[in-house]
Amino acid sequence: MTSLHRTRRSTVRAALTASGIDALLVTDLINVRYLTGFTGSNAALLLLAGDDEEPEQAHGHVLEATGSSPDSPDPRTRFCTDGRYTVQSQEQVPDLPRLIARPCDVALLRGAPAGSVGFEARSLPVAAHDVLQAVARERSRPVSLRTTLDVVEAARVVKDPTELDALDRACQVADRALADLLAAGGIRPGRTERAIGLELDQRMRELGAQDPSFETIVAAGSNSAIPHHRPTEAILTTGDFVKLDFGATVDGYHSDMTRTFVLGAPAAWQREIYDLVHAAQAAGRAACVIGATGDAIDAASRDVITDAGYGPQFAHGLGHGVGLQVHEAPGLARGSASIMAPDMCVTVEPGVYLPGRGGVRIEDSGVVRPDGYHVLTRTAKDLVAL
Amino acid sequence: MTSLHRTRRSTVRAALTASGIDALLVTDLINVRYLTGFTGSNAALLLLAGDDEEPEQAHGHVLEATGSSPDSPDPRTRFCTDGRYTVQSQEQVPDLPRLIARPCDVALLRGAPAGSVGFEARSLPVAAHDVLQAVARERSRPVSLRTTLDVVEAARVVKDPTELDALDRACQVADRALADLLAAGGIRPGRTERAIGLELDQRMRELGAQDPSFETIVAAGSNSAIPHHRPTEAILTTGDFVKLDFGATVDGYHSDMTRTFVLGAPAAWQREIYDLVHAAQAAGRAACVIGATGDAIDAASRDVITDAGYGPQFAHGLGHGVGLQVHEAPGLARGSASIMAPDMCVTVEPGVYLPGRGGVRIEDSGVVRPDGYHVLTRTAKDLVAL
Repeated sequence: MTSLHRTRRSTVRAALTASGIDALLVTDLINVRYLTGFTGSNAALLLLAGDDEEPEQAHGHVLEATGSSPDSPDPRTRFCTDGRYTVQSQEQVPDLPRLIARPCDVALLRGAPAGSVGFEARSLPVAAHDVLQAVARERSRPVSLRTTLDVVEAARVVKDPTELDALDRACQVADRALADLLAAGGIRPGRTERAIGLELDQRMRELGAQDPSFETIVAAGSNSAIPHHRPTEAILTTGDFVKLDFGATVDGYHSDMTRTFVLGAPAAWQREIYDLVHAAQAAGRAACVIGATGDAIDAASRDVITDAGYGPQFAHGLGHGVGLQVHEAPGLARGSASIMAPDMCVTVEPGVYLPGRGGVRIEDSGVVRPDGYHVLTRTAKDLVAL
Repeated sequence: MTSLHRTRRSTVRAALTASGIDALLVTDLINVRYLTGFTGSNAALLLLAGDDEEPEQAHGHVLEATGSSPDSPDPRTRFCTDGRYTVQSQEQVPDLPRLIARPCDVALLRGAPAGSVGFEARSLPVAAHDVLQAVARERSRPVSLRTTLDVVEAARVVKDPTELDALDRACQVADRALADLLAAGGIRPGRTERAIGLELDQRMRELGAQDPSFETIVAAGSNSAIPHHRPTEAILTTGDFVKLDFGATVDGYHSDMTRTFVLGAPAAWQREIYDLVHAAQAAGRAACVIGATGDAIDAASRDVITDAGYGPQFAHGLGHGVGLQVHEAPGLARGSASIMAPDMCVTVEPGVYLPGRGGVRIEDSGVVRPDGYHVLTRTAKDLVAL
């Protein structure tokens, strides 16, 4: 995997050069994982701008390893973690010079070449920044700290083949767990929301998920009208909508899927809002094409619901990116200027919620491709009566 | 629970007054939960300094609710969350004026009384702080933002009876899950670390845990020499040490316990290091008394191991506070000046690790009381051969 991570680092390095920053201090652990493969709970990276071929001496800084062939250690990135992770980091990050120190950000800044060093302002706490400022001031070779926003996140928006494969496997685990739960009769009157949630989570783990992507939502009856409902001891009853919103984490990547079932024969109002959400979800998928904005895709789906008179009952955004985080860029929502590009991975999840009665949401995770939105969560979406 | 949270808020308010800050903007979600009971993923609080009796007008700010009897709404705290949590926050936080807005910190700062407003510098990101600074500048009634560190965390170090009860229940879930696992013969040659970890986690959930406290550690054979080992497909073999480090989360509170078993008759070296760690753990518990420093407690346990010649094989700190976070203040480690006070809850967890062979750690969670350290994790600590 190291050449993969090296490619990702090269992309970020080029972005640094373009924005005139000499180095980037990466402290967000998800970004560290993306750029190195390291999964521990404490680490940081210092990325030097420019391409791999640029001579190291240009930055006046001596690193532990040199060379620029694809198989040699990467000389333009420094990795730091603490003593708990010496062995783990040797296995996961064999291709980078390694510093064992605490705190990691301070150690890397002390050794940084003179010049401007960007920091990740969306995640670095003020107190940690204050410490870094003090370190910068006491250095003999001056360093100036520079605010950056979303440098690594911008690279993460488009998924590479390794990421798409992990996302596909995460979606398959969720699909399979739900299929097995249904085949075993796990969703039936008399069971509690909580019992179903526990069983679904356990099935995902047994199928290889590290964890659920987030706290699994099982919402029955009037609870299905609450968009984010935590499973309770509420007992499923004939006539209920049962909404399941869940996902699996595989190799750090998250799937996200919602399906809504009905227990027994659907009432007319249930069929009406189910069919409406089903049509709106299809419209959202159809609009999710290369070049479309998040705002336009949201509108394409939302208009179906609004035209049917249920606009106020769909009070959340249409979707979001999924990857190393379950919610990440781009947003599919009103006002989102994000433009769809090949190999972005996003959810499409409209819903209609009738307080006190019940609600329906249908959600897929999928990939933006030249021929349209490619669904990764393959569980059927027709109304199923259990 | 609202009078409980109100008492906690009063404690923090008094600390604000003592440090000359007019208000505190609480953005750390764990601190929000501690002070209100709210468990959602987005919220913030504005706490005004002073006691409940002080007239509101002194701060020139009109709140939605007034009154100061124990049953009336708390007029000196404002709570903000977003529209996803309107219903949940009405149930969990019935006693506070509620603002539904996004971002919560900005909305609360806009409405804050003139004066100094502390922010939580250890968790507030630089980018969020920059936005708050801009909001402060554009207000007609001036507000000055002030760095604060650990204001709420300082209150959290000593647990109140509700917290001690939750911690006790979290420890009992872990104890019971391990007892059931052992009784079912779950730890035996031929099983994988991963299978045992999954079963232990599932048993904790079935016994009422929301989740494990952290990623459960199951480390067999030479893996037991790695302090933080993630369960693998490694197969347990006769002669192995098997180290389990795990805990349950109940009502948001975490238990943390480590036990080490041996498969088959213990070898002499296994008995030697087990007995040593057992004695060191007892020494640490005995030293964990009111008035002792974290440094002194660590030394009392560490000296036992050092005197036996295994000092370098015990490379981590002795323990840490447990509560709403699995690792929190106070630290029991070299150089820790934290002083034990009644109703602090801390772990005591020495270990000896022999690379390539195996390791032992024994850990309890317990409460500091006038009569000494009171163990909450009651599973026996004698060497058990399975």
